[in-house]
Amino acid sequence: MINAAIITVGNELLSGVVQETNSQFLILQLKNIGIVVDFLISVGDSIESIIYQFDQIPPKVKIVLVTGGLGLTHDDVTKAVVSQYFQSPLAFNSEVYENIHQLFKSRHLELNPINKEQAYLPKTAEILPNRVGTAAGMKFKKDGKTFYFMPGVPREMQLMFLEKILPELSRLSDQKIFTETLHTTGLPEAEIFAKIRQWIDDHPETNISILPDFPNVNLVLTLIDEQVKRTELQNQVKELENILGDVVYGRGTDTLEVVVGKLLIERDLTLSVAESCTGGLISHRLTNIPRSSQYFMHASICYSNQAKIQQLGVKSETLRNYGAVSMQTAIEMAEGVRRIMGTKIGLSTTGIAGPAGGSAAKPVGTVYIGIAADKSKECCHFLSTRDRILNKCYFSQMALNQLRLFLKLRQDYD
Amino acid sequence: MINAAIITVGNELLSGVVQETNSQFLILQLKNIGIVVDFLISVGDSIESIIYQFDQIPPKVKIVLVTGGLGLTHDDVTKAVVSQYFQSPLAFNSEVYENIHQLFKSRHLELNPINKEQAYLPKTAEILPNRVGTAAGMKFKKDGKTFYFMPGVPREMQLMFLEKILPELSRLSDQKIFTETLHTTGLPEAEIFAKIRQWIDDHPETNISILPDFPNVNLVLTLIDEQVKRTELQNQVKELENILGDVVYGRGTDTLEVVVGKLLIERDLTLSVAESCTGGLISHRLTNIPRSSQYFMHASICYSNQAKIQQLGVKSETLRNYGAVSMQTAIEMAEGVRRIMGTKIGLSTTGIAGPAGGSAAKPVGTVYIGIAADKSKECCHFLSTRDRILNKCYFSQMALNQLRLFLKLRQDYD
Repeated sequence: MINAAIITVGNELLSGVVQETNSQFLILQLKNIGIVVDFLISVGDSIESIIYQFDQIPPKVKIVLVTGGLGLTHDDVTKAVVSQYFQSPLAFNSEVYENIHQLFKSRHLELNPINKEQAYLPKTAEILPNRVGTAAGMKFKKDGKTFYFMPGVPREMQLMFLEKILPELSRLSDQKIFTETLHTTGLPEAEIFAKIRQWIDDHPETNISILPDFPNVNLVLTLIDEQVKRTELQNQVKELENILGDVVYGRGTDTLEVVVGKLLIERDLTLSVAESCTGGLISHRLTNIPRSSQYFMHASICYSNQAKIQQLGVKSETLRNYGAVSMQTAIEMAEGVRRIMGTKIGLSTTGIAGPAGGSAAKPVGTVYIGIAADKSKECCHFLSTRDRILNKCYFSQMALNQLRLFLKLRQDYD
Repeated sequence: MINAAIITVGNELLSGVVQETNSQFLILQLKNIGIVVDFLISVGDSIESIIYQFDQIPPKVKIVLVTGGLGLTHDDVTKAVVSQYFQSPLAFNSEVYENIHQLFKSRHLELNPINKEQAYLPKTAEILPNRVGTAAGMKFKKDGKTFYFMPGVPREMQLMFLEKILPELSRLSDQKIFTETLHTTGLPEAEIFAKIRQWIDDHPETNISILPDFPNVNLVLTLIDEQVKRTELQNQVKELENILGDVVYGRGTDTLEVVVGKLLIERDLTLSVAESCTGGLISHRLTNIPRSSQYFMHASICYSNQAKIQQLGVKSETLRNYGAVSMQTAIEMAEGVRRIMGTKIGLSTTGIAGPAGGSAAKPVGTVYIGIAADKSKECCHFLSTRDRILNKCYFSQMALNQLRLFLKLRQDYD
């Protein structure tokens, strides 16, 4: 087993303002080639702190991936760290300069003098060229460890890693790690755990993590080493899917919008959406999927009662008698958008995302979800207890999940 | 200056599947009371690895905040770590048990036997009660450092930190850190840096970070220690705003949707939106803001040409002569949605998010943004070079930014 560590550098990572994402990309890539990340550290742009962390890396870690701090502003210190730690003074590198020059030319931009400074690099570094940015990467060896330094900008880091570093690392590792993620929605963590606890005890060779990720619970299965285990892992995944049933909505990179999209294509159905409390989030999620224009035709985001009447044909007496947040309105919205846009399926949401607008009978977090098809219609009701942003997230998840169950279980939508 | 370290525990954090967010919350909270986070570490659920990291914490760090690993499933090992590191065996804690019991009662849920196990805690721990979950927190002192252990579930961690830990820590620190963030959009990092480089050289007392956050560049200013510096910081922020001009759209927690919402309210205007390539993202962002129903009336997400004609009154000859992705269509969409919904302003997007659908004349990443008001209309055009998700993000940012500039600079919208 080869162990790696990831060190992300930048004051911004300790500012509370920026969310670091490079490490997740690197972890997934390393996992595919059997390299395990032992820990990850974020540290500020301080030469002393970075070198302290380098000195603490345990002997078992052989690969150190460092991102960030290679940029062109005053607070980027990684080059100074490298220069000191590997005793390699900065020198002008004409190849790197030429690369920066070409990059600007290809973008019809003028070279800023600041960019020129980026061609000064530690003399003995093995250079990792950056095809899409101005900060070159570097490779060094010391005390049995290999250090790779990459820029912090995600697409620059990703391309450099995939083109230059991954091929090298994959030759080092002869172990394989097989992993699969199962996504569930609709049950809390403790209930999921209770359902599969016996299974976990019966399979000590499988590492399984149960990860709440509101409003979902994900299961990550990991098997290490032998070739035969890819099939074994797939069998285990199937066993767990059988135990858990319909709360499992997908595997791996599946999201509900991906799963719903596949079901609509398989069944040759088209969809339109009428959103009130979700405010466009369902449409946004559906249209994140390439080629969603095959099945997603139109959405109407109707915040006002007037828009619900005018755009969706909701009856004003329905709104008067039952209120905008009601089963009746949800169903009329779904039927309306379906009829007006001429799609096979209509999906609707109406509810109260908060913070204001709740009542004793219909508290903040209430949502009604309507689904209309040619021969059937249904409405369901959920209650969330979070803030506005998380409530919208929950509502959209429940709406897409209800649509998934409707498409999967019913045969009478057409 | 008091230094802290944050250690987040969980195999999931090294799985590439879950993005860790607790540290950002803690950093911001600590910053407010003058405590600086020196580094943060994510480590897996391994007793050995966690204790190794505890042993490496540098002497200057006095506060150690640990989140995660207190849960109820088989892979949560933090209690075992604590028990070993502080030599404190587990024992049944009746107060914690009572708290878990009450929590389930209040939610009308049955106590799962697994939850009962969470009442076993290291004997000598100072308990930090968890009001919204079953995992209690703990406090220990060792070698001049104070360790706080909190659950990994964000809302449980946040409440415990705010109620129990923050008041304690704020009494320790007599320094103040003043910080302000400036948000810009429309210029790359190097150009922002070139514009303010002189200012940075003239203000060595101010720490300033320039943080690209596609498609924005943020500036974080930090001043430490003296009381007078809050005013000083505000003056410095104004100076930078003057140097940078209209590319600055906000401060602190401002987002473009917040800023646009404020401008609409100030000017007593209403908005409707016609989205094609952004697929609902603009509406989603606008409706993330509480009380956006005051100015946001309706959006029509029109993916198909048919929907553009039927829902927005775009002329079929416009689509035929210029194409759906054109200045003419963008303007007709904005005018159409404005007219049909009777709002003061109409905003539209039409473009190609990718990966398919591009041509030489209109490559993937092309977007046209239309704005219509009573006495004026305008259209602008941008090109992005990212993937579908980032292109949608960029399109929505440019659309909201154009709307901001329109509202700010023009007086003839009404």
